[in-house]
Amino acid sequence: MRLQVAIDRVTIEEALKLVNEFDGLADIIEIGTSLIKDYGLLILSKINLNKNKSLILGDIKTIDEGAYEFEMGYKCGFDILTVMGNSSLETIEKCYEVSKKYNKGIMIDLLECSEDKIREISNFKDAIYCIHTSTDKKNKGSFINELEKFNKEFPHIKHIAVSGGVKLESIEVFKNYNIDIVVVGSAITSKENPRDEIKKFKGEFIWV
Amino acid sequence: MRLQVAIDRVTIEEALKLVNEFDGLADIIEIGTSLIKDYGLLILSKINLNKNKSLILGDIKTIDEGAYEFEMGYKCGFDILTVMGNSSLETIEKCYEVSKKYNKGIMIDLLECSEDKIREISNFKDAIYCIHTSTDKKNKGSFINELEKFNKEFPHIKHIAVSGGVKLESIEVFKNYNIDIVVVGSAITSKENPRDEIKKFKGEFIWV
Repeated sequence: MRLQVAIDRVTIEEALKLVNEFDGLADIIEIGTSLIKDYGLLILSKINLNKNKSLILGDIKTIDEGAYEFEMGYKCGFDILTVMGNSSLETIEKCYEVSKKYNKGIMIDLLECSEDKIREISNFKDAIYCIHTSTDKKNKGSFINELEKFNKEFPHIKHIAVSGGVKLESIEVFKNYNIDIVVVGSAITSKENPRDEIKKFKGEFIWV
Repeated sequence: MRLQVAIDRVTIEEALKLVNEFDGLADIIEIGTSLIKDYGLLILSKINLNKNKSLILGDIKTIDEGAYEFEMGYKCGFDILTVMGNSSLETIEKCYEVSKKYNKGIMIDLLECSEDKIREISNFKDAIYCIHTSTDKKNKGSFINELEKFNKEFPHIKHIAVSGGVKLESIEVFKNYNIDIVVVGSAITSKENPRDEIKKFKGEFIWV
């Protein structure tokens, strides 16, 4: 199990500071959608100049123009990029092709995807599939029901990430499933000492 | 019928030049998703400093964090912002609330939305609903079937836009439907003299 820490809704100066703080400690550092839409990939590419130890994911949330956006994202130095599961199959195919060309990572974000849609797009074998609950939803519920259903319906999906309201207590549940990446945002970044929080999460992971 | 001209996949300098060229001629000038993800809203806000005659739409394609993204977009001076129809209902509600607070426009992008999903989100009475075919799809087909079905299934949706591979010849079809906004991209911007092309489209609109 790997820890992805999401940085969102801060200035670019704060983001750079946090990347330096988290580097080598988080397995993956996520540059959140808010940063990408506020500042743009071209400016954010400077985050990638200093050869980070952690992988850097750009939460670009591509939903159309797959080849253009993924080419741009990888050229800006991101190691992993996201595409929405609710894109057309053709868009995801294009993103996947570009990820193979650059030998880099791709995460398919299943936010609001129906089971039929997940089935349609479930055969990209090296992609990470992210089970994701919208930040805007009030009743997030636990992940247990979703994970049970997901494992049963899509046993052929091997690389799974979970995202949306993950807390330290959630990890206990995740240990019962084959989860590759746990995405954590404010449960780490809103704390006074985020590095300590990362260590707590990583401590939980030791036995997984 | 109003004409929205989309600017995409160019440098910010070229985009600024095109906005100045199109200003007052196109009803709405779209700052495309590629520009927003490459350069960011904060830098692009300078497009809005010079009090354009045309409305400026930011194709921000919000799919989560509705309030944050829409607040940022309107603060950066955009007159209309887009949210994906495939977002959670809660996300669209938040975007709609912010649009009311700022007294600005909202376009709901129906890219890859199922009929059930459109039905779920079809009651935002002042929103523009955009029937949109993915750029990545090879077989776009004509708009006729889609418009027939849409009018029949959703007669209560009053503000309709169409987007994705629109050409000058497409306008003849649109005249038979109650369409508010026609979105045109490369059929205008890829031409040697885009202003002339805009005039041709506007000429077609005279009788609508």
